[in-house]
Order: sequence, then C-alpha cells, then structure tokens
Amino acid sequence: MTDLERQGKLAKQAAFSLASAGTDKKNEALEAIASILMERANEWLSANEEDLKAAEALGMRSSMLDRLSLDKKRIEGIVEGVRQLKSLPDPIGHVDSMDTRPNGLIIGKKRVPLGVIGIIYEARPNVTVDAAALCLKSGNVCILRGGSEAIRSNMCAVRLMREALVSAGLPEDCISLVEDTGRESARELMHLDKYVDVLIPRGGAGLIRTVSREASVPVIRTGEGVCHIYVDDEADLDMAASVLYNAKCSRPSVCNAAECVLIHEKVAEEFLRKAVPLLDRDKVELRCDERALSILGERGRAAEEADWDAEYDDYILAVHIVGSAEEAIDFINAHGSSHSEAIMTRNYFKAQDFLEKVDAAAVYVNASTRFTDGFEFGLGAEIGISTQKLHARGPMGLQELTTIKYIIYGKGQIR
Amino acid sequence: MTDLERQGKLAKQAAFSLASAGTDKKNEALEAIASILMERANEWLSANEEDLKAAEALGMRSSMLDRLSLDKKRIEGIVEGVRQLKSLPDPIGHVDSMDTRPNGLIIGKKRVPLGVIGIIYEARPNVTVDAAALCLKSGNVCILRGGSEAIRSNMCAVRLMREALVSAGLPEDCISLVEDTGRESARELMHLDKYVDVLIPRGGAGLIRTVSREASVPVIRTGEGVCHIYVDDEADLDMAASVLYNAKCSRPSVCNAAECVLIHEKVAEEFLRKAVPLLDRDKVELRCDERALSILGERGRAAEEADWDAEYDDYILAVHIVGSAEEAIDFINAHGSSHSEAIMTRNYFKAQDFLEKVDAAAVYVNASTRFTDGFEFGLGAEIGISTQKLHARGPMGLQELTTIKYIIYGKGQIR
Repeated sequence: MTDLERQGKLAKQAAFSLASAGTDKKNEALEAIASILMERANEWLSANEEDLKAAEALGMRSSMLDRLSLDKKRIEGIVEGVRQLKSLPDPIGHVDSMDTRPNGLIIGKKRVPLGVIGIIYEARPNVTVDAAALCLKSGNVCILRGGSEAIRSNMCAVRLMREALVSAGLPEDCISLVEDTGRESARELMHLDKYVDVLIPRGGAGLIRTVSREASVPVIRTGEGVCHIYVDDEADLDMAASVLYNAKCSRPSVCNAAECVLIHEKVAEEFLRKAVPLLDRDKVELRCDERALSILGERGRAAEEADWDAEYDDYILAVHIVGSAEEAIDFINAHGSSHSEAIMTRNYFKAQDFLEKVDAAAVYVNASTRFTDGFEFGLGAEIGISTQKLHARGPMGLQELTTIKYIIYGKGQIR
Repeated sequence: MTDLERQGKLAKQAAFSLASAGTDKKNEALEAIASILMERANEWLSANEEDLKAAEALGMRSSMLDRLSLDKKRIEGIVEGVRQLKSLPDPIGHVDSMDTRPNGLIIGKKRVPLGVIGIIYEARPNVTVDAAALCLKSGNVCILRGGSEAIRSNMCAVRLMREALVSAGLPEDCISLVEDTGRESARELMHLDKYVDVLIPRGGAGLIRTVSREASVPVIRTGEGVCHIYVDDEADLDMAASVLYNAKCSRPSVCNAAECVLIHEKVAEEFLRKAVPLLDRDKVELRCDERALSILGERGRAAEEADWDAEYDDYILAVHIVGSAEEAIDFINAHGSSHSEAIMTRNYFKAQDFLEKVDAAAVYVNASTRFTDGFEFGLGAEIGISTQKLHARGPMGLQELTTIKYIIYGKGQIR
C-alpha cells in the first residue's frame, strides 16, 4: 500500500464519520479552524515566508509571488470566509422529496455528501483553507494537493486545521494534504478511484485539461472561460459599451471576463466610437476581423484564427462583426467555452431567442458576464464554476458538493 | 476527419435543433417511431433473423441468443414503451427556481438537455429503441454503439427511426448508429469529447469498467449491484425470509438482486430454518462463512474471500453471520457496490441508523432491494441505475438526462 493509498483509506473512513456529524458539530469545527488560524497566524506566516524565499531564489515572477504570499490582512480575509460558511444553511440531510408509492413504500430523496473530494490546485495558499472549509461544511472529506511552491504554507495550514478538527471532536483525517508534490503523486491521486469520489482541479486551463484527460476518478471541470458580449443592432449602445468595459476590464484574469465582442454590422461603427474610449483607459489591445479593422484603423490589429478561441485573461479583446443575432449565436456556440454569454438588445424576441439557443452555463440579457459567481448568484460560497454539463453547471456552492440517497421505508414489500 | 468525427459533428448540430424543439414536436416523432416500427416490423424481424443465423453459426449460447432475438410480441412491448414515453411530462424547459437579486438581476435555473449522449451496449436490440426514445423525449441526441451480434437488427431499427424523425420534421441525426462495431470505433467514441457530452454504458460489469477507465468523455456508471439483506436479531423473521427470497430469486440476473445475506448471530439458526426451504425452491447455492456453515452443514459450502465482493447474477447467495447491526453496516460499506441495501428489523433506532450510515444509492428498511427501478420509483422510465455519486444516483429517468442553464435578465447591470 502506497502512502497515498493509506491516506485515501483514512480519508474514506473519516468520510463515514463526517457524513453523520450534525450541523452543530461541523460549525464547531469551522469556528475552531477560524480561531486557530488567527491565533497562530505567525506560524502560518513564517512557513509562507520560507515558501516565498525559495520561490524568489528560483526566480518566480512577481505576479506569481503575489499569489503565493500571505499577510495578516489576507489571513483575516480567509478566516472571515470560514466564519461566513458557518452561517450558511447546511445542505446535508434535506429531503428533496418524499412520496408514498401505490404499494405503500415510502421513498425519499435525501441530500448526502459526495464523500471524499480531491482538490488539485496551484500555488495559492488561500485555496487550501477555502476548499477545506467548503468541503467540511458540506460533510465532505478533502484530500488537498497544492503546488510545490506553497508546500510549507500548506503543510502548516493543514496541520493547524487538523488540530482544530480534533479539538472539535471530528477525525483529523477529514482534511489532509498530499505532501509529495511530484508529478507521480498527482497522477496517483487521479486514479485513486477506490477512495476518492470526485476530483476538482482549480487553476489554469492546462492543469484542468490534464486532470480531465488523465483521471479515472470523476472530474468536475471548472473555470475555462471564453465569454462573449454580442451587441445587437437594437442595443442601447451606451449601456452596451458600459457592460463591455465592465466585462473586459473589471478583472480580466478571471474566467467570467469577456474575451470577444460580437457587433452587429449596422451599429459597428457607432458602437466602437462609444466603446473604444472606455477600453482606452486600460489600453485594451483589439484583435479585429477585417471589417472591424477597417473601422478601427491603427487602433486595432488583425486577428488570427486562434484569436476566436482564445482565453486571454488579459487586457486583450477580440472584435468580430456579424450580420445578425443568429450569426452571433452560431459563432458563440462554435467558439465559446459554454461559460457565460451575453446579448445587449432592446428586442424582446432576440433576447428570448439568445437565452434559448446559446449553449452555456449562464446566458445574460443586458448584463455583464462578470456576475457568474457563487456569491453574486446568492449561493453564499463557491468552490468553482463548472463548465461541464454533468452534475453541476455554473457556480458551485455547498449544494453542488452533495449527492442524494434514496431512503425507503417498507413493511415487508416484495416485488 | 474520421467517419465517427463526422457523425459526432452532425449529432452536435442536430442537438442544437432538438434542444429547441417543443414537447409536441418530440411527441410527434415518438409516435412516428412507434408507428413505423409496428408497420414495418417485418423488415426489423428479418434483419434480426440474419443476426440470429450468424450468431448461431458462431456458436452463441442459447441464453445470449434469447437476448438477441426479436419476435412480434417483443416488438409490441418495445413500441408500447415508446408510446408510454409520450405521456410522460417533458423535463425540458422547467425553471427549477427563479429569483431577483439585490442588484435587480433576475436569475433562473432552467432545465435543458445534456446534448449528445453516447450509449455503448451489448447484444440487446431492444436497447436500441428504448435508449433512442428516452434520449429523444429528453431533448438529447444519441449516438448508439451496440454489439456486433445485433448489427443488422440495429441498422434496421435506426434506419426506420431516422425515417420517422424526418417525417416528424426533426433532423435524422437526432438518432444515429456507429455501424463499425470494431474495438477501435468504441475507443474513438470514448474520446469524442468535442461532440459527445456524456457516455452511458449499458451491459455487463466488464463493459462498464472498461468504459469508465478508458473514456475521456464523462461517463455515468450504471448497474453494478452487490446488494445485501441484513437480518437483524429484532427482525420479523418470516418477513425477512420472504424478502430475502424475493430479493435473491425473483430475477437473479439483474443488478438489484441480493448477492449476500448478513444475519445477526442471535437469530441465525432460526432464520435459516425459515429461509432455506424458500431458497430450496430455486436450488440456491449457499456460500457460507464458518459459522453459517456449521448451521447449514451439507446444505452450504465454504465461501472464499472473493465471495464477499461477488456479483453472481445467478442462483447463488453468500451467507455471513454478524454480531451486531453496526458490524453489518461496516461490512456493507466495505463490500457493497453502493447500489441497494436493506435492513430487516422491528427496531426503530437500528432502522434509522442503517438508513443514515449505509452509503448506497437506495437504502431500504423492511423491503426487497428489487424495487430499485425507475418504474417502481415512479420515474415512469429508466435509462439505467447509476451507481456513482456525481450527477445522478440510483434509477435514472428523464429528469436525470437533463442539466441546467442559468438564464439572467438584466437592465445593464455591471459589477
């Protein structure tokens, strides 16, 4: 038995205890985690400092260093997140429906945890606590596998959280970390079907693609976002410019940011006249098809074929001109990543048509794609945004970390 | 582009049309399918006859030949199933919930089809029509990949169904068959991520394991059933014997049949005295642990380690004696396949404990595991019984062939 198999087995055992732990017990553990992370923040900070030193020595880019680094304020934010989870309703135990069948069997559908969730992520130490707390609240055991750059920070955070679990009377194995950050351990985790019920990769597109391709454990794909704003000829063009600017520039690195604007040919010139000054504020690079380029001149540059499928995560926007709303819908269904898509229009029928025909997790009329988010949707928390169709689609909150169990009360019925 | 990629692409295109087809249109197509299969049953029967001749020539076992064969009565049953689907409610378009957020965004969760479903199955020609009709009613396009033994029957059924689709004004590519039944084509289908949204393997455990291991397309695992009946010391022993006999013998080849009985030591002798005469009717072979063997003597035979995890699908039953309900629960969680599990008891607390702690799709108190079935659960139809936790658990009806799409109505909101 390998180390990871042993870890998986302990996790599975812990999952049986945690599944029957009540809400009070889980909230007590969350509070214990919040307290210990605040009280012993210095331990966590000094582990993080070591990670930072090692990363700097290896020449890590400053934007990456920033993601890796913790400070008092960030820890306060993380702890605040853990405490917020306490106040959210516990999804476990809810009976979605219960009915009596003609033969007298009483059949109910009860919400239960998924079991053991593997989280594979990169160098963000905040994910360690966020993910563990979300899993805990939803009755799931987690096996965390973070990047090597954050290993000291992660080991410290997990050690503290395990202490907190024990102090609250729950098995420490409800939260564990894969300490070996080599490639082989990740691969092994992806095939630990016997003990792991679901894998959720969190991070860049490369990581997510690798995990979905490689894993035999079921995977929930999250976070690939090639989102479009379609500006119809019947749009309120000022509103459309404001929404486009928000969707592109309010936080270009996230998956719900827009990567491409589609503009109806009748309004292309007028719309661009309104939108470009906004995009100028952030020096957004515009990659244009021929017609857009003829309008924008030197402000644009010619797009290549790959631009129509690109997730820039940056101040870059693809610009494509279309002849109709239908053409925009077809373009989106061919090039989008089924994440978030928006139409800007005053026309009722086109709005309804867009909602119906665009195949994506979230389809908007006259609003920014940036709203696709667990908090904005009122889920109270979020473990990621699913871009697949199975199990969960769009923002995943606590409810999406559950499954159901049929419970059946009989009186000796046979078939 | 390979043949299968071309087929996948056509399927995906058809999926966009079918997703917006209304209930009336889909029901019209189901009626057209039912009619054509009845009217031209002779074509289907003669194709089936050719399959049967070829299979006999290859020396197929008679039980397999029986699965492969069609006759007028079986076709009537299949057609009746298609007509029943017409009368079921259409799950598509239902808005599960809709709310207005504090910023005025109106956010709804709307039921939509999964898209393109690949069905990989063995030599049962009835699955061809059942699966196609279930997919059609739920707005999903299907790509069918049946066994080589039934290829002529399947080609004929699919040709007739495609004619029916066209006559009802739907794209013929809503239903298609992979005509190449070689291994390579199955493998290619398992990796057709670009066009196929979900794979549902239907058939034996070997097939299902291969598909789950191999596929990069998300898979729903169905039908592995290692089910237990636990007879508590506080059980009504006559009721328990009747339930065990039903669970084992009413249809041993199916996944919800019991494979193992766990008996509390206090009642083992008395229970077996009641149960064995029933099991004798079907000459059920009893594979026993040491203590059961000492009670049963020559009526039993010693179990091997592998018996505790076996899915016999036959008139064989493993018999294990336990010291408590807790021990039974642990045994089930260690050896069961998370399909269907039952406790027989008069004790309220043990019943509730069993429902809570056993990790399975369906957990019963005082009833036969044989009820785990879409029709018995009132779903009206069934494409299979999921033994995984993601997306769907237990019997899968039309609802389980859908996903959701967030639809969002705004007034220019930005974040």
